[in-house]
Amino acid sequence: MTAQSEDFSAWYNELVVKAELVDRGPAKGTMVIRPYGYRIWELLQDELDRRIKDTGHHNAYFPLLIPESYLQREAEHVEGFAPELAVVTHAGGKELDEPLVVRPTSETVIGEMMAKWISSHRDLPLLLNQWSNVVRWELRPRTFLRTSEFLWQEGHTAHADETDAMRETMLALDLYTEVAREIAAIPVFGGEKTPGERFAGAMRTFTIEAMMRDGRALQSGTSHYMGENFARAFAIRYATTSGELAYAHTTSWGMTTRMLGAVIMTHGDDHGLVLPPRLAPYQVVIVPIGVGEQGAKARSAAYELGDRLRGAAVRVHVDDRTELSPGFKFNQWELQGVPVRLELGPRDLAAGIVTMARRLGEGKEQFRMDSVSQVLPSLLEDFQAFLLRRAAEFRDAHTAVVDGWAAFSAAVAVGWAAAFHCGTVDCEVEIKKDTAATPRCVPLDATEESGACVRCGRSDVYGKRVLFGRAY
Amino acid sequence: MTAQSEDFSAWYNELVVKAELVDRGPAKGTMVIRPYGYRIWELLQDELDRRIKDTGHHNAYFPLLIPESYLQREAEHVEGFAPELAVVTHAGGKELDEPLVVRPTSETVIGEMMAKWISSHRDLPLLLNQWSNVVRWELRPRTFLRTSEFLWQEGHTAHADETDAMRETMLALDLYTEVAREIAAIPVFGGEKTPGERFAGAMRTFTIEAMMRDGRALQSGTSHYMGENFARAFAIRYATTSGELAYAHTTSWGMTTRMLGAVIMTHGDDHGLVLPPRLAPYQVVIVPIGVGEQGAKARSAAYELGDRLRGAAVRVHVDDRTELSPGFKFNQWELQGVPVRLELGPRDLAAGIVTMARRLGEGKEQFRMDSVSQVLPSLLEDFQAFLLRRAAEFRDAHTAVVDGWAAFSAAVAVGWAAAFHCGTVDCEVEIKKDTAATPRCVPLDATEESGACVRCGRSDVYGKRVLFGRAY
Repeated sequence: MTAQSEDFSAWYNELVVKAELVDRGPAKGTMVIRPYGYRIWELLQDELDRRIKDTGHHNAYFPLLIPESYLQREAEHVEGFAPELAVVTHAGGKELDEPLVVRPTSETVIGEMMAKWISSHRDLPLLLNQWSNVVRWELRPRTFLRTSEFLWQEGHTAHADETDAMRETMLALDLYTEVAREIAAIPVFGGEKTPGERFAGAMRTFTIEAMMRDGRALQSGTSHYMGENFARAFAIRYATTSGELAYAHTTSWGMTTRMLGAVIMTHGDDHGLVLPPRLAPYQVVIVPIGVGEQGAKARSAAYELGDRLRGAAVRVHVDDRTELSPGFKFNQWELQGVPVRLELGPRDLAAGIVTMARRLGEGKEQFRMDSVSQVLPSLLEDFQAFLLRRAAEFRDAHTAVVDGWAAFSAAVAVGWAAAFHCGTVDCEVEIKKDTAATPRCVPLDATEESGACVRCGRSDVYGKRVLFGRAY
Repeated sequence: MTAQSEDFSAWYNELVVKAELVDRGPAKGTMVIRPYGYRIWELLQDELDRRIKDTGHHNAYFPLLIPESYLQREAEHVEGFAPELAVVTHAGGKELDEPLVVRPTSETVIGEMMAKWISSHRDLPLLLNQWSNVVRWELRPRTFLRTSEFLWQEGHTAHADETDAMRETMLALDLYTEVAREIAAIPVFGGEKTPGERFAGAMRTFTIEAMMRDGRALQSGTSHYMGENFARAFAIRYATTSGELAYAHTTSWGMTTRMLGAVIMTHGDDHGLVLPPRLAPYQVVIVPIGVGEQGAKARSAAYELGDRLRGAAVRVHVDDRTELSPGFKFNQWELQGVPVRLELGPRDLAAGIVTMARRLGEGKEQFRMDSVSQVLPSLLEDFQAFLLRRAAEFRDAHTAVVDGWAAFSAAVAVGWAAAFHCGTVDCEVEIKKDTAATPRCVPLDATEESGACVRCGRSDVYGKRVLFGRAY
């Protein structure tokens, strides 16, 4: 396999296939998510879905096919999405009177329904979420990061006023931050997008930005405050406590299968995937070693140990394939990023021990067989914490606070730059033309300070430094 | 609301909307599944998904958009699905070179991938499952039962030979039977479809058939043995142990959001939904009663009781809306099929008791407040068992073993008929023309016996009686 340091992009493209995460779909830019990859997504889904429900949201399902005219009701929205739409023109053997677009996102069809369901302030807030597939035609597809079809959840909520809608917008961003950090072991910066990078139809867009191991940024979840834009387009109105009609304020927020790309590019190395235990389909793989009678004994000891670990809530797999050598298996599970490998050979069995190799450890360790189910859960927790710490250190080492253009250019060539900016789109475009870097976000928790725009020297407009970086 | 006995169809159409299960989607025949309806689907999904995983299947995800040419590779398959396809002809602002169909089912795209992934007998069986949306354009849509888009799981598996593939086909049918009975409280007959009713491209199709309260049948899950049909169309071949190349034998099986229609029409009554506890979003709703200070006391007692019930793993909701009368709430929760309603008024509180109304009970009962969390779980189990028993009794009372045409016609006018049949499609067509009844299945566990075809008098071909009924 191509080394990560040699050609990051080739490494990624080879790895996603060799680790059996995906295969290429038949239509341009589509992917097949294979069982190993899909299980990672399911584990992430479970964690996110629980948090979405615990904060009072309800899942629902809205139609895939949306009349073209719906999108046209919000001018910026249709302008943003029109170039990416897949359009159904024929159905049931006939040409349709009105073409239907395959949803690229569901603000419009959900807006139409919210207008029906909301009439009084008592109907607010309305807190909906949908798990679904969406289609956005991609000219330059890239596995997980930009695919013509992807899976996601899309939260859509309606509120009485800006205060409540903004509280919701930030709550969603907090959920994403927590899931990224605690589950995917990816430290992210939360912040607001500059006007040039806003979602089509939003008043304000917030994002969590993660740094990949090539120094590039990956937008990993976004949360949008729509103001009254969609409420006006779809007539989402409610009677206030004093009986007047008012427009609702809406939000939307999404996290996608792109997160799998984030996990791969945050933790992976030359040997393959490195999976955070909380997202690993198998946290532990046991490889029994030996042939003939000794092999049979090792396998039965492996099954027994597997059961004990399952009893300790560890996701474990016994690789009992007899046609493959232990070495082949070791390489495969390393490539597939399994956090811990346990080996059980005749000598281990005789001594009542287990040999362990950690995915990022040096050499092997040995444990008494009867202590393994006590030791492993905390060892996996430590590994999870280590990955987060390592990623945070990498990010911080590749993020520079800069004030001059030369320092800025140098910083975004290898990572991120925190710099003052004048806030104009023209200046953002200039920066991008010269360095390929874009403003990733105005970080929420940055120090309040002011200075001259790193590019044009005009005074800064955000009152804090903006994070710039090249992005996927 | 229209009474069920008066006009079953009107009752159903009104109920699905009034109970807030669905709303009409913008495109023809599509539906919005509202939170209350979607939660029922999620609970069913959880139960089915667990069983699918426990039997060794892995979830994966395959693309929504399938090149038209894929469907054409299996002649019967394309013939069966062509009239129902939705077709994407434009994407990314351009006309596509080859139109893409929105998947009506995924045998073709999964077949293409199986061919890539399978090379040796060691790769078999390959046991895949997908949770997804599919589109089949409907001329006569009906909520949950026939919608242009629906949600389902589709299992797709490949095996070395017929024996193993047939074992899988029957395993899937067993899972469906168990989920229908144990979770949805719907007793079903499992059996094989006659040749005229087979899935497009299958060698054998098996089904579970449920009886609705109007005596009509609802096909509630199907499992297909494909033989080598798709393996030949997509070149799914493997090297046998002796090194020869052989075609795999494949299966597919699906259960859909149609199951929500089955639940409504199996258990519902004139007052609305009746939900089996295992599928009820809220198994218990607590309605605190009283105004002012007394109301506040009742609400806080209701929250406390709610917490205790949650601790006993009961799904509970406290209806603390102050703007609505208790009577309004009682009606709403009855309409929405909540198994148990608890009332907490000032007199209950003073006496340390709770007043309970069961969804199908007569009058009200009282319990000591401190016994409720012991009493309720088993009471809910009893209710679950009662619904299954009641549905089985209804079905048996509306199923007649018949030998003559007059008895057959009378039986299928109100329910099902078990009768001998000659097995010819012509004769099936005649029967349908006269009575609207179709062969639902040749039941797996029917007694082996022979006789003259109930319609044409020729000798029977199945060696057992066939179930006939009018179907949705």
